[in-house]
Amino acid sequence: MDALHFDGTLRFDRSYPAPPLVPGEALIRPHLAGICNTDIEITRGYMSFRGVLGHEFVGTVVACEDGAWVGRRVVGEINAACLRCATCTRGDYTHCPNRTTLGIDRRDGCMAELFSLPVACLHPVPDAVPDAAAVFVEPLAAALEILEQCHVRPTDRVAVVGDGKLGAMIVQVLRLPGCAVTLVGRHPERWSLYQRQGVRCLHAEELDEQFDVVVDCTGQPAGLATARRLVRPRGRLVLKSTFHAPSELNLSLLVVDEVTLVGSRCGPFGPALRLLERGLVETAPLISATYPLREALEAFEAARGRLKVLLRIAA
Amino acid sequence: MDALHFDGTLRFDRSYPAPPLVPGEALIRPHLAGICNTDIEITRGYMSFRGVLGHEFVGTVVACEDGAWVGRRVVGEINAACLRCATCTRGDYTHCPNRTTLGIDRRDGCMAELFSLPVACLHPVPDAVPDAAAVFVEPLAAALEILEQCHVRPTDRVAVVGDGKLGAMIVQVLRLPGCAVTLVGRHPERWSLYQRQGVRCLHAEELDEQFDVVVDCTGQPAGLATARRLVRPRGRLVLKSTFHAPSELNLSLLVVDEVTLVGSRCGPFGPALRLLERGLVETAPLISATYPLREALEAFEAARGRLKVLLRIAA
Repeated sequence: MDALHFDGTLRFDRSYPAPPLVPGEALIRPHLAGICNTDIEITRGYMSFRGVLGHEFVGTVVACEDGAWVGRRVVGEINAACLRCATCTRGDYTHCPNRTTLGIDRRDGCMAELFSLPVACLHPVPDAVPDAAAVFVEPLAAALEILEQCHVRPTDRVAVVGDGKLGAMIVQVLRLPGCAVTLVGRHPERWSLYQRQGVRCLHAEELDEQFDVVVDCTGQPAGLATARRLVRPRGRLVLKSTFHAPSELNLSLLVVDEVTLVGSRCGPFGPALRLLERGLVETAPLISATYPLREALEAFEAARGRLKVLLRIAA
Repeated sequence: MDALHFDGTLRFDRSYPAPPLVPGEALIRPHLAGICNTDIEITRGYMSFRGVLGHEFVGTVVACEDGAWVGRRVVGEINAACLRCATCTRGDYTHCPNRTTLGIDRRDGCMAELFSLPVACLHPVPDAVPDAAAVFVEPLAAALEILEQCHVRPTDRVAVVGDGKLGAMIVQVLRLPGCAVTLVGRHPERWSLYQRQGVRCLHAEELDEQFDVVVDCTGQPAGLATARRLVRPRGRLVLKSTFHAPSELNLSLLVVDEVTLVGSRCGPFGPALRLLERGLVETAPLISATYPLREALEAFEAARGRLKVLLRIAA
């Protein structure tokens, strides 16, 4: 089958072996897949991953022991957990020590004509949510994880540092509780969407105030430093970036200022689907381009420094 | 007057100028002062402080505009805030950007025959709390700050890394909500008090489990590394140490494990006095030695690597 895989080099392969049907899992034919910064990081060595890339998708189940799934349009959580260990049974299954992760850690991803995922990971997509929106569920869930972890109050002053792919989700989610939201970015050409949504958009140099809640989603040490500077004493700094490079924070100053740092990763799919169904988050303006799977290498090139680039895999 | 001061060198001085009576402040004659690790850090350059050392005390008000304070036995909060700025008026007065801090930042401390502190910082000491217990209110309040910032549940598994001066307060406070508490330390000769209180005491090498809440109060990069290793995914790591040296934490792993880091500093005095009055925290076994103020240099030498060393200043 056609697949985009990474073995130290990123390769489009027309004869990658198709996955077998495994008990408890479903075979899925993806319609669309999204290119995420994590995918780009993987091609630079992150997680030492080898295999088919991709973890953002919407597709159709084409085979499954449980026939009720076959033919359903689905999105899927990316962590395939054991659901039996102490971590899973206390509800922290996205942290299962036995997990594999779709297209990131020991599990072939969705940038192929077929891939496999446990049924426990799947979520049916409501008819009202088109493919081009559903493919954003995974990063939107990651943005919602902030609200899952932190009590963000309607009166909080919130800053989101980073106007990239993930920032686009986070800024839209954090405006929903009614907070005053400031987006700190470097791409004014992207800001009209957020400004229309009531978000103030600025360059970092234009700011000399501090915020109750600051989110860093820049993926850059310099962005983290900006985010830290913007947190008030006793405020919260949410980290959504994973870095290659070790990043330094002055921990003594975190103590003196009693700042709380919140590491934040994958989030809840059900609420993300509800936000899309309710039209509370816009995705169409975020799509920069859509490429067929066979042009995936060009798509990856195009995805650097752009908003969302999609791969069209099946109709 | 007699005073212990630091001008790049630690000096005991018999003719240090006595402080004037300032409007809104009280002149206090300390009975006892405690030597804290922060004092020792200051003699190594921390905060670039110059002046009289000391911020842990119990004493008697000897002069004040408001005569009702004169003759009262008091302890005192160490941050002298403006109480007018936006930070103060939202209740974060220990973070007032205009604050001075007793014996730490631009305000002479309590290791002298007389010192001055705003009336707003003072707390009368109940008769049931003897001087030798009241002198622990400041570090006990710092330990209680953890409960002020974090919801520590009775079912949480808690580890305290560091069996020094501050650890002695923290481990006793964190056992109060009923949590299972493990003290991770290097001084088994200090552990009998905590073991009698139902706390498990271990060396770091003996542990291969993880905890819901971990507190680092070692003041050492190696202690922080141990503490980080002991936090479960989605757990909380409370930082009570201020370091000279930059300390490194792998921030990507904080994101992947969704760990929350909580910087924690000064805490509430009222609840700390109540704990002492109720006999819920033991202090007598923590006193290693008591020196007269004129032997303060010897006391500082003795305080390194010991539990609490006190200075007796007035009867």
